[in-house]
Amino acid sequence: MPLIQISMVEGRTVEQKREIARVVTREVARIANTKEEKVKIYFTDIKPENTASGGKLKSDS
Amino acid sequence: MPLIQISMVEGRTVEQKREIARVVTREVARIANTKEEKVKIYFTDIKPENTASGGKLKSDS
Amino acid sequence: MPLIQISMVEGRTVEQKREIARVVTREVARIANTKEEKVKIYFTDIKPENTASGGKLKSDS
Amino acid sequence: MPLIQISMVEGRTVEQKREIARVVTREVARIANTKEEKVKIYFTDIKPENTASGGKLKSDS
Amino acid sequence: MPLIQISMVEGRTVEQKREIARVVTREVARIANTKEEKVKIYFTDIKPENTASGGKLKSDS
Amino acid sequence: MPLIQISMVEGRTVEQKREIARVVTREVARIANTKEEKVKIYFTDIKPENTASGGKLKSDS
Repeated sequence: MPLIQISMVEGRTVEQKREIARVVTREVARIANTKEEKVKIYFTDIKPENTASGGKLKSDS
Repeated sequence: MPLIQISMVEGRTVEQKREIARVVTREVARIANTKEEKVKIYFTDIKPENTASGGKLKSDS
Repeated sequence: MPLIQISMVEGRTVEQKREIARVVTREVARIANTKEEKVKIYFTDIKPENTASGGKLKSDS
Repeated sequence: MPLIQISMVEGRTVEQKREIARVVTREVARIANTKEEKVKIYFTDIKPENTASGGKLKSDS
Repeated sequence: MPLIQISMVEGRTVEQKREIARVVTREVARIANTKEEKVKIYFTDIKPENTASGGKLKSDS
Repeated sequence: MPLIQISMVEGRTVEQKREIARVVTREVARIANTKEEKVKIYFTDIKPENTASGGKLKSDS
């Protein structure tokens, strides 16, 4: 720990995930006062038809 | 919030997800006494070999 | 399955959860074309200081 | 319940998942003192570029 | 990884969780062909009124 | 979206969570090229006896 699960609409590049992993690990370790190697991150890519806000699928908005 | 994560065996259509999103958002907002636009829903499609009940994979039953 | 995980800010009553469980189970079973006894629901109560939107804790807004 | 969600880097075979489901169900039911048919297991296959430890993507290490 | 999230109705003892952690780690590492120190386990204790099956809260059944 | 679920061993202060929410929202929005108000964060506080690494409960190590 910390365990960080990041769900985003699919389409982000590996480069964006690499940068998010690097920066979020650094900042959470710094603020939570723990070591960077303790921080685990998982990304989930969500299809637009698999997420809804206000009752409407993202693929419909 | 409310955040609603719905995992189902893969195979449901976008139309079924559209209807579930609409109805579940309406009902949860009504009962939980909040606004529909606050309700977020995520669907996860699960392969039959990725779920087990009673120790048996769904793809084996 | 379906497995439905509902996270809400703490404070909803057992009666609200009873009603959400009943209605969401009925509607998801109907739309997803499965049996009600197959539908599992889990509620998570989230403290206001444990959720943030737009970078601000709910307990600060 | 118990509900067991197992996330692993993609690549495990259906046979490995079948064995994990069988053994984990048996052991958790035994130790938690519940029936095997009550135990639900979900596997999530994670791409190497979707997991990071210590700020580095698994696909980069 | 593997990351294993185990949700159970509240009431299991620390001793039961200790035993589940030990045995599930050993077996998943063996079957998934990975090292035990790579296996992370998280337990979530669920109140009976926070889980429902077939539309009925566990606290009502 | 993005939806970010951060699980940490219990004990972090509201101030630490406020800072994590602010910084992680800013950085993920910047890198993922989305608006800050789209970023939702949930914290889960984990008791030491509810997490294990390498088969050992954190409360035992």
